[in-house]
Amino acid sequence: DYPKKNAEILSGQYGVNLLLVGISLMLALSNSESQVDKKDVLAFLVAVMLVQLFWMLWYIVKKKKHECPAPEKDIHAGTSWLRGGLTLLAILSLIMDAFHIGYFVGYEQCLSPVIGVFPAVHAVHTISQVYFIWVHVKDIIKTYENFERFGVIHAVFTNLLLWCNGVVTEADHVLQSYQKRQVDLGIGNMTLGNREPYCNCTTKACTIFLHSLYYLYPFNIEYHIFVSVILFVMWKNIGRTLEYQRKIKVVIRIAGIIIGPVMGLIAFSSSIGVLVMYIIQVGDSVEARESALNMFYCYGIIILFFMCTSGSIGLLIYRSENAPMDYSKIPSRKLDSELLFITATGSWLMSWCSIISVISTSTSPKYRWTSFFYSLLLIFEKYIQNLFIIESLHRKADNDEDEADGPITEIFSVSGGLTLSTNISLAPSFSGIINAAFESQERECASVKSDEENKKEEHIQNNRLSEESISLPQKSTKKLNKKRKIVKNIAIFLFMCNISLWILAAFGCRPQYDNGLEESTFGFSAWSTVVNIAMPLNLFYRMHSVASLFEVFLKV
Amino acid sequence: DYPKKNAEILSGQYGVNLLLVGISLMLALSNSESQVDKKDVLAFLVAVMLVQLFWMLWYIVKKKKHECPAPEKDIHAGTSWLRGGLTLLAILSLIMDAFHIGYFVGYEQCLSPVIGVFPAVHAVHTISQVYFIWVHVKDIIKTYENFERFGVIHAVFTNLLLWCNGVVTEADHVLQSYQKRQVDLGIGNMTLGNREPYCNCTTKACTIFLHSLYYLYPFNIEYHIFVSVILFVMWKNIGRTLEYQRKIKVVIRIAGIIIGPVMGLIAFSSSIGVLVMYIIQVGDSVEARESALNMFYCYGIIILFFMCTSGSIGLLIYRSENAPMDYSKIPSRKLDSELLFITATGSWLMSWCSIISVISTSTSPKYRWTSFFYSLLLIFEKYIQNLFIIESLHRKADNDEDEADGPITEIFSVSGGLTLSTNISLAPSFSGIINAAFESQERECASVKSDEENKKEEHIQNNRLSEESISLPQKSTKKLNKKRKIVKNIAIFLFMCNISLWILAAFGCRPQYDNGLEESTFGFSAWSTVVNIAMPLNLFYRMHSVASLFEVFLKV
Repeated sequence: DYPKKNAEILSGQYGVNLLLVGISLMLALSNSESQVDKKDVLAFLVAVMLVQLFWMLWYIVKKKKHECPAPEKDIHAGTSWLRGGLTLLAILSLIMDAFHIGYFVGYEQCLSPVIGVFPAVHAVHTISQVYFIWVHVKDIIKTYENFERFGVIHAVFTNLLLWCNGVVTEADHVLQSYQKRQVDLGIGNMTLGNREPYCNCTTKACTIFLHSLYYLYPFNIEYHIFVSVILFVMWKNIGRTLEYQRKIKVVIRIAGIIIGPVMGLIAFSSSIGVLVMYIIQVGDSVEARESALNMFYCYGIIILFFMCTSGSIGLLIYRSENAPMDYSKIPSRKLDSELLFITATGSWLMSWCSIISVISTSTSPKYRWTSFFYSLLLIFEKYIQNLFIIESLHRKADNDEDEADGPITEIFSVSGGLTLSTNISLAPSFSGIINAAFESQERECASVKSDEENKKEEHIQNNRLSEESISLPQKSTKKLNKKRKIVKNIAIFLFMCNISLWILAAFGCRPQYDNGLEESTFGFSAWSTVVNIAMPLNLFYRMHSVASLFEVFLKV
Repeated sequence: DYPKKNAEILSGQYGVNLLLVGISLMLALSNSESQVDKKDVLAFLVAVMLVQLFWMLWYIVKKKKHECPAPEKDIHAGTSWLRGGLTLLAILSLIMDAFHIGYFVGYEQCLSPVIGVFPAVHAVHTISQVYFIWVHVKDIIKTYENFERFGVIHAVFTNLLLWCNGVVTEADHVLQSYQKRQVDLGIGNMTLGNREPYCNCTTKACTIFLHSLYYLYPFNIEYHIFVSVILFVMWKNIGRTLEYQRKIKVVIRIAGIIIGPVMGLIAFSSSIGVLVMYIIQVGDSVEARESALNMFYCYGIIILFFMCTSGSIGLLIYRSENAPMDYSKIPSRKLDSELLFITATGSWLMSWCSIISVISTSTSPKYRWTSFFYSLLLIFEKYIQNLFIIESLHRKADNDEDEADGPITEIFSVSGGLTLSTNISLAPSFSGIINAAFESQERECASVKSDEENKKEEHIQNNRLSEESISLPQKSTKKLNKKRKIVKNIAIFLFMCNISLWILAAFGCRPQYDNGLEESTFGFSAWSTVVNIAMPLNLFYRMHSVASLFEVFLKV
C-alpha cells in the first residue's frame, strides 16, 4: 500500500536521527565543561538497546506463531562463517561486559547505577542479538513491512551507536596513553586529569579489570559494526522480490595452497613481534622511540610491497582470463563493495596528510622518508586490494554451471517448447534473474505459489535456457587449474596480512601520534580529530577486507 | 573489454584521492604554524583545473571530428533550467574572478603571482566548463570509455576541490567576523591576526573588492557543487545502455497557482527583512544581540511551521490518490534523492547539538526555548520535505500516457502480432525499460542500429504494450485537477521558503555562533568544527531542494 521508496526513507531518516542524537551526546561528553555526563550517554544507550530487545522479541514470537509459509531467505546475507566470526566476537564482548560489571561492583558506592546497568543490559542484548542473527538474518520480510523496517533500522543504528561509544572510549584511551608517554618522556607539558572514581575499590581486582578492558574493546567495536552491516542487508531485503538464488555448495579445495598461507603466517608472526617491540620501545626514551618508529615503517613497507605485488598479480591473472562478470543485484555484495571504497577513504586521508607533512616539514628525523614511502604504499595497497576484491566478488563463480541443472528443474514446472527468439538479445540484462532456485526449506511451501508467480518463473526459465546456450558454452573442469590456485594463494596471503595490520592498529601501534610530523603540520587538535575519525574507518576496513577476502578464497 | 565495475572503481578511487590531497593541503593551511602556504593550495588547484581544461578540449575536438553516429543523450541529465541556473551562478563567479584580479593588481608588489594566476585560470575554466555543460553533459559516452571515465571524474573532483576551497575561505571569513564582533562587544579575549598584505594598495579599490568578494562567494560555492553533481551523473552514464526515454514536454500550467507564490513571496521578503535586522543588531550590544537572536528564532519557527504543514498536506494528498510509482532506473534522480538524504544529515546534526545544549545548559537566555523549538521544527521540516520531494519525483507523471503513442511508433518498427502471455507477469520489473523512446536529434542515426538492438526494442515494445493494458487503464484529463493544483502551490511555496532559508544562512545569519549555547556545551573548537562541516552541507541542501522542488513543480 505505502510506496516502498517512501517507507525506506521514512525509516532511514529515523535511524540517522537516532544516530545523530547519540553522536551529539558523545560530542558534548567529550567537552569536560559541559553538563552532559557519562551516565546520560549510557542511559540513552540502555534505552535504545531495550527498544531493540522488545522488537526482536516481538519478531521472534510472531515468527513462531506463523510457521508456514516459511519466509523466503536471502542466501547471500550473513553467510555461516560470517555468523561464526560474529559469535566469536560476541563472546569476547560478553567477557568485556563481565569485566565492566566486576569493575562496577568494586566501586559500587561512588558510581552511578547506570554504569552497572549498562553492561548487564548489553550482555542480554548481545546474547539475544546473536540468536536473532543465527535464526532470522536471512529472512525476507513480507508482512508488516513498514513496522519491521523501523525495527530493523533501529537495530542497525543501535549497533552503530554502540560502535560509536566503543570508538570514543577507545580513542580517549589512546590519547590518554599518548599524553602519559609524552609527560613521562618530558616532552609535552599537559596536565593529566584524574579519571579514577572518588572511592576505594572493594574487590582488589579493579585495576586488572580496567586494564584488561582495553584489550577487549577492539573486538567489541568490530562486533557492533559487523552486526550493523548484516542487519542493514536485512533491511534492504525487506519487501524484496527474490527471483533468483542458488545455494552455493562451499567445497574448500586446498590442494596446492601452500605459499599463500606460509607467507601469511610469516607476516602474521612478524607483526606480533613488531607490535611487542614497538610498545616496549616507544615509551622508553626519545631515541628508542625514533628507532621503534623507523622499524615499524620499514616493516610496513615490506609487507605493503608484498601485498601490492600479489594484488597486482591477481588482477593480471584476471585480465588474462577474460571470464564473464556477474552483475546480478545482490544487496550484500553491493554493500560490501561500497564499504570497501568508503572506509578506505579514512586511511587515504591519513596517508595524504602524512605525505604532505613529510614534504613540508623543516625537521628531518630518521624516519622521515620511510614514513613517506610507507604512506604512499598504503595508498596503492588499498587501491589495488579494492580492485582485486571487488573484481573477484563480481566474477561468475566457476561452479555456477556445475549445479545449474539440479535444483531448478525440481521446483519449476518447465513448460518446454516455448523458446522465444526475441528473448535472446535481452538475456544479459537478466543475468540477475537467471540463476534461479530457492532454498531447500522453502520447497514445502512451494505449492502455495499463485499462478502468476509460476508464469513468471516459466519465463525466467526460458530466459535461462537461452542465455546459457549463448554466453557460457564451455564447461569448466572441477579441478583447480593453475591460475585459480595462484588466486587462492593470493587471497589467503592478503587475508593474513589484513589481520596482521588490523592487530597492529587495534592494539596500540599508532605512529600517527608518536611520530610528531603530522602534529606539527596540522596542529594537535586538528590532527587528533582526523585520526579519531579516520582510524575507526581504517580498522573496519581491515576487518571488512578480511571477511571479503575469505569469501574470495571460498569462491575462486 | 575491461569490466565496467572495475573501470568505475579505478577512476572513482583516483577521484577520491585527488580530493583527499586537496583536503589535506587545506587542513595544513588552516594551521598557522605549518609550512603550507595559500599559494601552494592555489597552485595545486590551478594544476588540477588545467588538466580538466585539456581533457575538455580533447573531448570537444574528438566529438567535432566524428559527427555521426551522434552520441545517445540522457534527457534526464542536466535539464535546461538547471543549466540556465548554472550559467547565472557562473556569471557571478566570473565577476568574483574579476574582483580577485583587481585585488591582485592593487597589491601586485607583495603578492605571489599564483594569487593572480588563479582567478585568471578559474575564469577560463568557468567559461569553458559552462560551454561543455551546455553541449555535452547529456552525452552517453561509448568510446574510449576508460579514458573518459578518468576525464569526467577528474572534472567532478576538480569542482569538488574548488567547492572545498570556497567553503574554507567562507568559513574562515565567518569565524573572523564573529571573533571581531566578540572583541567589539568586549566578550571574547582573542587576538585578531592581521591578514592584510604587507604593502599598500595601488588602486584605491582594494577594500571595495575585498568586501564585495564575500557577497559573491556563496554563489561561487553553489556553482561548483552543482557542476560536480551534474558531471557525476555524466560519469554514471558512461557506457550505459539507454533503453528507455521519452522527451517530457514541459507545459507550465499556472492557472490556479496563486496562494503558493503569494505566501512564498511573503516568506521571501520577510526573510530579507530579518536578515538586515539581524546583521545590524547582532553586533550592536549584548541586549540587541539577544533580541536579534530571539527575533530570528521566532521568525524561523513561523516559516518552518508553515513548511511542515504544507509538506504534510502534500503527503496526505499523495496518500489519498494512490497513483502508481515509477521505479525506473534514472541515475540523476537516484542521485538527487541520495543527496537530499545525505546533506540533510549536516543540518540534523547541528539541530540535535542545539537541542542537547538547550536541555543541558545552566544559563537561561531569552531565546533558550525558542531556539529549542526552532531546532526541533528544523528536523521535522527536512524530514517531511525529503519525503515530499522524493515521493513527487518517483510518481508516474500524468502526461506519461498522453504522449505515449506519438514518438515511439515513429522509431520502433513494431512487429505486431507477437504477444506473449508469459510476459505479463514480468511487466512490473520492466517499468524502467518500458517508457521507451529516443530524443529527436538521434533519429537521423537510427538506421545505423544493429539487428540485435532492433530485436531488443521489439521485445521492449511488446512488454510496453502488455504493461500499459494492465496497470494504466484510465487516462487522466489534461486539465489540472484540484489536488494537483494544491501540490503545485505547495511546491512553489516550499521553493520560495528554501531560497529564503538559503539566503539567510549564506549571507551571515548564523545564530549557531552568536547564541553561545552550543559553544558552552561543546567547546569552541569542537563546535566550530561541527558547524564548518555541517553548514556547507546545509547550504547545499537548501539549493538542491530548490532545484528539486522546481522539478516537482514542473512535473506535477
